[in-house]
Amino acid sequence: MAQKVQVLYDFAAEAGNNELTVKEGETLTVTNQSIGGGWIEAQNSRGEVGLVPEDYIEFSKQLPSFPGAAAPTPSVGHVATPDLSIFDSFAPAAAPAQYQASNGNDPWSVWNTDPSGGSNNNSASNPEGTQTGKSPADPWSSGSQGHPQAYQGPGAEYDEWDDEWDDKSTGGYAESESGESGAMQRGGASMKISLNKFPGFSKPGPELYLLCKQLAKGKEKLPIYSGEVGPVWSYPETQLDCVVADPKKGSKMYGLKSYIEYQITPNTTNRPVNHRYKHFDWLYERLLDKFGSAIPIPSLPDKQVTGRFEEEFIKMRMERLQGWMTRMCRHPVVSCSDVFQIFLTYKDEKDWKTGKRKAEKDETVGVMIFSTIEAEAVELDPVEVEQKCEQFSRFTKAMDDGVKEILTVGNEHWKRWTGPLPKEYQRIGKAFQNLSSVFNSSGYQGESTLTDAMTAAGKTYEEIAQMVAEQPKKDLHFVMETNNEYKGLLGCFPDTIGVHKAAIEKVKEGDKLVAASKITAQDKVTMAKRVSTMSYSLQAEMNHFHSNRIYDYNRVMQLYLEEQVKFYETIAAKLRQAHSQFTTM
Amino acid sequence: MAQKVQVLYDFAAEAGNNELTVKEGETLTVTNQSIGGGWIEAQNSRGEVGLVPEDYIEFSKQLPSFPGAAAPTPSVGHVATPDLSIFDSFAPAAAPAQYQASNGNDPWSVWNTDPSGGSNNNSASNPEGTQTGKSPADPWSSGSQGHPQAYQGPGAEYDEWDDEWDDKSTGGYAESESGESGAMQRGGASMKISLNKFPGFSKPGPELYLLCKQLAKGKEKLPIYSGEVGPVWSYPETQLDCVVADPKKGSKMYGLKSYIEYQITPNTTNRPVNHRYKHFDWLYERLLDKFGSAIPIPSLPDKQVTGRFEEEFIKMRMERLQGWMTRMCRHPVVSCSDVFQIFLTYKDEKDWKTGKRKAEKDETVGVMIFSTIEAEAVELDPVEVEQKCEQFSRFTKAMDDGVKEILTVGNEHWKRWTGPLPKEYQRIGKAFQNLSSVFNSSGYQGESTLTDAMTAAGKTYEEIAQMVAEQPKKDLHFVMETNNEYKGLLGCFPDTIGVHKAAIEKVKEGDKLVAASKITAQDKVTMAKRVSTMSYSLQAEMNHFHSNRIYDYNRVMQLYLEEQVKFYETIAAKLRQAHSQFTTM
Repeated sequence: MAQKVQVLYDFAAEAGNNELTVKEGETLTVTNQSIGGGWIEAQNSRGEVGLVPEDYIEFSKQLPSFPGAAAPTPSVGHVATPDLSIFDSFAPAAAPAQYQASNGNDPWSVWNTDPSGGSNNNSASNPEGTQTGKSPADPWSSGSQGHPQAYQGPGAEYDEWDDEWDDKSTGGYAESESGESGAMQRGGASMKISLNKFPGFSKPGPELYLLCKQLAKGKEKLPIYSGEVGPVWSYPETQLDCVVADPKKGSKMYGLKSYIEYQITPNTTNRPVNHRYKHFDWLYERLLDKFGSAIPIPSLPDKQVTGRFEEEFIKMRMERLQGWMTRMCRHPVVSCSDVFQIFLTYKDEKDWKTGKRKAEKDETVGVMIFSTIEAEAVELDPVEVEQKCEQFSRFTKAMDDGVKEILTVGNEHWKRWTGPLPKEYQRIGKAFQNLSSVFNSSGYQGESTLTDAMTAAGKTYEEIAQMVAEQPKKDLHFVMETNNEYKGLLGCFPDTIGVHKAAIEKVKEGDKLVAASKITAQDKVTMAKRVSTMSYSLQAEMNHFHSNRIYDYNRVMQLYLEEQVKFYETIAAKLRQAHSQFTTM
Repeated sequence: MAQKVQVLYDFAAEAGNNELTVKEGETLTVTNQSIGGGWIEAQNSRGEVGLVPEDYIEFSKQLPSFPGAAAPTPSVGHVATPDLSIFDSFAPAAAPAQYQASNGNDPWSVWNTDPSGGSNNNSASNPEGTQTGKSPADPWSSGSQGHPQAYQGPGAEYDEWDDEWDDKSTGGYAESESGESGAMQRGGASMKISLNKFPGFSKPGPELYLLCKQLAKGKEKLPIYSGEVGPVWSYPETQLDCVVADPKKGSKMYGLKSYIEYQITPNTTNRPVNHRYKHFDWLYERLLDKFGSAIPIPSLPDKQVTGRFEEEFIKMRMERLQGWMTRMCRHPVVSCSDVFQIFLTYKDEKDWKTGKRKAEKDETVGVMIFSTIEAEAVELDPVEVEQKCEQFSRFTKAMDDGVKEILTVGNEHWKRWTGPLPKEYQRIGKAFQNLSSVFNSSGYQGESTLTDAMTAAGKTYEEIAQMVAEQPKKDLHFVMETNNEYKGLLGCFPDTIGVHKAAIEKVKEGDKLVAASKITAQDKVTMAKRVSTMSYSLQAEMNHFHSNRIYDYNRVMQLYLEEQVKFYETIAAKLRQAHSQFTTM
């Protein structure tokens, strides 16, 4: 447990708050990393223990730590580990032997090495000087620019969140553990450190699975069947679903730290359980560790550093947590997993703690998830595997571009429809009414029919102004939310696909390795078989993705067009009514 | 005929073009001022005669000329002229004894002394930094700014006229006689000189009429009756109307000067006559001279200095000439006048020339028009006269503000609906189609229903983009044209009302003048009677204005709303169709 860390900045403890005063450069021993709220518990060289802001300490020094710590290290445990040194001569020079999806072989390497959104090459779709990608990981970086009328979810267009909004980050695998009370509130340090970004905690490469001498004989089995559309996961008869609702404020540490607790009710038990955002984040980390190599696990909705008790923000976060949970529930592998089940159905605090500990000890994580997959179909030729992989890579990249284009356009649309356009309708309305009241002052008799009608027409345009301003929340909002969700999901594919590409590369090296007597001919056969299994897994996942995508886009487009029709029909009806008040002379 | 003028700039004659080379400072004698096309014929001191650009000569030096010249001098002719010297001590110091509506007593003096539109104090209606009043007399100066998408009449939003457009002037009584071939094309002189602006040619004050010893016994009678709404003009049984159509290019001076001739067909004869813009301008000047003191005569549509053979421009000018003619036809006094009748119904060139000469010799012009008015109602008390006058002044000023607000708002609306808004709909359409074509590349079966529907939805938004861009021409255009016409008409009221105010002031001075034996008690009685007649005239004119206004605004609002309803209904129908292509899953 005793992870050593270095202090980055001076920190003065507040009295009576269980905090520890530390100096820059000091070495601490982490005694409890699960404090949450942006804090860790640490011990200094004098044996004093207390809370220190997570952001004030440096994890990346790789001070000695041992496997099995609470942090998500690649627990290889009881699985027989191959001697990876045989790959040293073939591994990329820059990175350690571990697999790093974001560099080298990554299919969207441009997109990853230039996280500012530079791969969104739909420049034609981005006229009027809109800058794309202001903030590296801002989900709607293109076009949002902190504009007060930019799309930020329902009810958020004019509130105080605007300034903080652009600072959010939702990078695929980054930004965990800071919880709800970010240390941003306590000090000036803006650096955020993610455990998952430390080289020491990176996911191991696919060779761990490909050359594993003996696959674990656990109870876990993830069968893949041949469906109408190709390889498919095994879907449960009843689809799991849940409702995220009823956010409540809670507090801890004598009221010094406060948080929001959500009620989650699954359709299986119909019994609600409570969870904080930090628990969702824990679940996300577990799912990512366990399934991330095979299944894209989308990030949780953005963390909000300040003002998190404001009603609108909570509502929006809840809506997005609901969206995230629904997506997880819909996944046959995720929804059936022990960790997901315990999150949704724990009976009491003890049950939850036990389940939590068990999940954290789960050793079938990272690429080893493939060892539980059982494909019933014939073994695939490596060339075919590569083709499939390339096809999915191209598709997800193209879809990512398409989704970003919609987000950019939608954001512009949102700004116009909540800002200048209603103002304009209002001004038209006012101008008609003003002229009408001038007419009223003419002293000419028989004027009232016209002036009444003009006033009514003016008021109608004011009503239309109101309608216009409120419309995006009724239709565009859902298009934005869906595409935003897909943007997040698609952002996970480079890593997932990268695992497969790396495996394919290893298999390609098979002959050389056999020739150099680094592996046996049998090892090569095993590798080919296992990469075939991986390919079935990817195909099952892509088919799952496609069927969900078709469902989601059908649904959101229908909803959008339905609301659009209503909107234009209502305007037409209002104007028809206004028109009827004018008499034909 | 021999008016002396001075040359402002050197001008070198083109060979074979009947032109005269002149030097700056040289004195010329005008031999023919009715050449038109921006030219006059003049003789130099060496006796040489030729054409000189009108803009190159200075009229305002007031070199000797004698009454009865072709220029519209205040011909008092056979009417007994009062000794106006009695008013010298009461006249404003700055201006000559003549009445000048644009200064002093003018009810909208701010508006007139600051012709850049400074009186449009609806600053609230002009946000987003739109500058008002860029060009002094530009009818839509507020907000037009040469923006390519500014409202400039149908079909003109992207053409080459933009630059020239702002240079136009349509000042109430200014800018006559330059005809269609402005000298702007020939030299660098940008100064334009209007005969009507010369002090020597200004309209005489109302005292000419008020103290006229003996009113002319002409055949002209303009009776005013008591109608339901108050004093009204005598309306003809059948309302005159005409159609302006079929513009044709013609040329003169061996093809060097070219022009457009319009065909005007009155409903009375159903026989077309041809007129050039310059003839309309001539008619305008005659009507202004004759009726301007009693009836606001709106300016002709803008002159266009360059590019006047472009189809769109001709179409727009014709539309506006039609509007102007229709308004003149609807006026019972104007439409029945000899000069208007000869313009519409001349039988041949000789008939036209005779009528033209006769009209130019008409002596019942300026304030003397009141001498032909016969009100059958009881004489009004001067206090009542003043109240009526003030009421009309307030109303017309308020309406002018209201109309300008609509033009400003409409101009903004025009820009948005022909520029950014359709672009946005197009981008939405493209984004849907792009995503649809990405989906098409998924390789997943059963995708086509969604992709076909999404493509159709995308195309629908592209169609909507087209509809949006074209809509202002179908509805807003008419609102703009009507309000623009009214802006022009309202701009004439300060002068018309000013004549009445000046008359009221004179009557107020009556007692003093009698006490000083400058006028007799009988003169005072006569003045009061005549100012009462003037008041009936103004009331009849206001009632005419009101009834036309109610008709016009009823009509244009109906048309606008009708087209708006159609527009929104069509969009709703298109979207409903697009919606129906998505299948419920």
